[in-house]
Amino acid sequence: MDFGPLYSERTHTMKASEIRELLKLTEKPNVISFAGGLPNPGTFPVKEVEEAVHRVLRDHAKSALQYSTTEGVASLREAVAEHLRKDGMRVHPDEVTITNGSQQGLDLLGRVFINHGDTILVANPTYLGALQSFNYFGAKYATCDSDADGIIPASVEARLVELKKNGIRPKFLYVVSTFANPSGTTISAARRRKLIEIAHAHDLMIVEDDPYGKLRFDGDAVPSMHSMDKGEGRVVYLGTFSKILVPGFRLAWSVAPIEATRKMVISKQSVDLCTNAFTQYIAADLLTGGIIDRHIPEIISLYRKKRDVMLGAMEKHFPKEGTTWTKSQGGLFTWAELPKHVNTTKMLVDAVAKDVAYVPGKSFFPEPDVGYNTMRLNFSYPPDDKIKVGIERLGGVMAEWIAKKQVLA
Amino acid sequence: MDFGPLYSERTHTMKASEIRELLKLTEKPNVISFAGGLPNPGTFPVKEVEEAVHRVLRDHAKSALQYSTTEGVASLREAVAEHLRKDGMRVHPDEVTITNGSQQGLDLLGRVFINHGDTILVANPTYLGALQSFNYFGAKYATCDSDADGIIPASVEARLVELKKNGIRPKFLYVVSTFANPSGTTISAARRRKLIEIAHAHDLMIVEDDPYGKLRFDGDAVPSMHSMDKGEGRVVYLGTFSKILVPGFRLAWSVAPIEATRKMVISKQSVDLCTNAFTQYIAADLLTGGIIDRHIPEIISLYRKKRDVMLGAMEKHFPKEGTTWTKSQGGLFTWAELPKHVNTTKMLVDAVAKDVAYVPGKSFFPEPDVGYNTMRLNFSYPPDDKIKVGIERLGGVMAEWIAKKQVLA
Repeated sequence: MDFGPLYSERTHTMKASEIRELLKLTEKPNVISFAGGLPNPGTFPVKEVEEAVHRVLRDHAKSALQYSTTEGVASLREAVAEHLRKDGMRVHPDEVTITNGSQQGLDLLGRVFINHGDTILVANPTYLGALQSFNYFGAKYATCDSDADGIIPASVEARLVELKKNGIRPKFLYVVSTFANPSGTTISAARRRKLIEIAHAHDLMIVEDDPYGKLRFDGDAVPSMHSMDKGEGRVVYLGTFSKILVPGFRLAWSVAPIEATRKMVISKQSVDLCTNAFTQYIAADLLTGGIIDRHIPEIISLYRKKRDVMLGAMEKHFPKEGTTWTKSQGGLFTWAELPKHVNTTKMLVDAVAKDVAYVPGKSFFPEPDVGYNTMRLNFSYPPDDKIKVGIERLGGVMAEWIAKKQVLA
Repeated sequence: MDFGPLYSERTHTMKASEIRELLKLTEKPNVISFAGGLPNPGTFPVKEVEEAVHRVLRDHAKSALQYSTTEGVASLREAVAEHLRKDGMRVHPDEVTITNGSQQGLDLLGRVFINHGDTILVANPTYLGALQSFNYFGAKYATCDSDADGIIPASVEARLVELKKNGIRPKFLYVVSTFANPSGTTISAARRRKLIEIAHAHDLMIVEDDPYGKLRFDGDAVPSMHSMDKGEGRVVYLGTFSKILVPGFRLAWSVAPIEATRKMVISKQSVDLCTNAFTQYIAADLLTGGIIDRHIPEIISLYRKKRDVMLGAMEKHFPKEGTTWTKSQGGLFTWAELPKHVNTTKMLVDAVAKDVAYVPGKSFFPEPDVGYNTMRLNFSYPPDDKIKVGIERLGGVMAEWIAKKQVLA
């Protein structure tokens, strides 16, 4: 049977993530890959998980193995709210929805808010997974400039004014606020305050995606924008267990005003009924028992070392000519910009031939013909010695391409 | 902030499932509820799960706690294919997608196949969760008659001819093939063969949803329609671990031709990246170790007893006048039809006042003004003694309403 004529219009325009297709290229043995975005399995608290499973099956088997409510297991929603309150966020458990990873949070936001043709404000570059979610609903993007201190408020405001002139009200501003994927940068506290002011002035909703905020290696913590929003309820906050516990549980949360939470929960009913109850109970056990809080410093210590190894190797081996990169203070990634004439997508073929891989940055820019000269580098996953060798190899390939003066395609 | 103007058009038309709202009514203590659809927690193999967790964390911790591939963990896809081959289905692991419950399978099918306004053929009544998934994508329904032997092929054919006259090609026929939710009926083998013939003649795709097929108490197994489809690949098959293992793992599978599987997997990338790896490894362990196969007879034995208790009590306490019900040979549900003048949605208020609850059947009919006089009754969850008492109470309420000769609203 030919399914061709049966596919929906969206399916015909749908394509696999370029990153994922490229990753297949990098799966060759011997390739040192900085292309992934995986937490290091060395951080997985295996013993603690097994002990929590034992307690959960002893005390809560009937609920933990049953369907849960769509919004999530009550004890986990309460534990998440309490966890966030420690960081100065005012969160009621009823504002918390447990999702099947933050990716589902993004999909539900797309369902609830985005009509075909709606405009979303984003930093440039921004998280590819969010673009993929929003693309499905037919989102358009208005891109805002960013630098080492994150998205630039003046650029956001300029975009808002410009859109308003054309009669367009964007549905929301989407940002990864801390140690962003892909850029590794953090929006400064002053900029966050300014963004909240702008949001107030323009009645703008903000989606603050914060998977990496807890993984700070240096410097002072910056309060979330959600905590700066004084009772206006215009910030929807996304957090996740994937980076502070394990990704394999597929557990994340959204925090949104009650009415929006209700819409997301009704959407989730038809999407998957509920999130995995078993891992929700395990995570609730580990969070309320303080085990996650005690575990985070171990993750930080491992990743800080890896970040140091990578930045040290970049300092030593990356070409100085026209190349800059993020001195990430946390998270999983750094990000490099090469001279404008270097196309990192094309360069990847040479890199893989030299057994090293990265993600070409282009995919993280919603507009065509920008970001061709950028790359995302992951330091959380590869072993330290591989990081050194891989960066040295990559530096060599970069030097060749910079020397080529090849014209941008 | 007022999110009202920001919601998508679909959100404005979206409403919570009537069943779920009604279920809240039935959560009063003392109410004996036949309204749920939950597996009995007495069937959860708690010890076996804990032992499997131990093996998984000992042998596969790094993968089982990490992100998995979007299509699912390879060992589970292989185990599911092997499990289905035992039932005469020809399934390659590459045709299997592991989903976050069958509800996600339905949502992904909606994404991949349904444009706003597309027509889906369904039995009348049909599974509410499927309607909810497809509704989001703007599906319309062409309903086909069904009786004690399931959907009637002649009715499907008549609908196809009628639609064709109007230039409409339905995207697919959706059926719960065995021990259907809500009707408890099974499509006979002869009808299945006829449906496959009709599908061939009309180039029709079939979605065969089969969550309950393994839970047969009496009679002979009926082969799946997927197994009757000789190499044409026109049947997409959905199965689940929720009813043969535990629902709390949120694990199900779809079987579809490779190209359609690829489309579903690309959709799933933007929906939630991947399904819970931890429970996938646990399920793979329990399936390949034969533990699930050995466990199913225990579930059957418990549910058969409950079915007997319920049908026995119905025989004893339900009014004879104009009332019929399904003598379910398996699954979780039976289904009753009352005289035409009884509105079971209105009657529910009286039933709850007498501390008994059911699901009014109306929600399972995509058309308005049909099925007002029907109800779904779940026998898998309540304790045996409560089944007896609850059915006696319900019989009393039914007798009153039948006597009323109230006009249908």
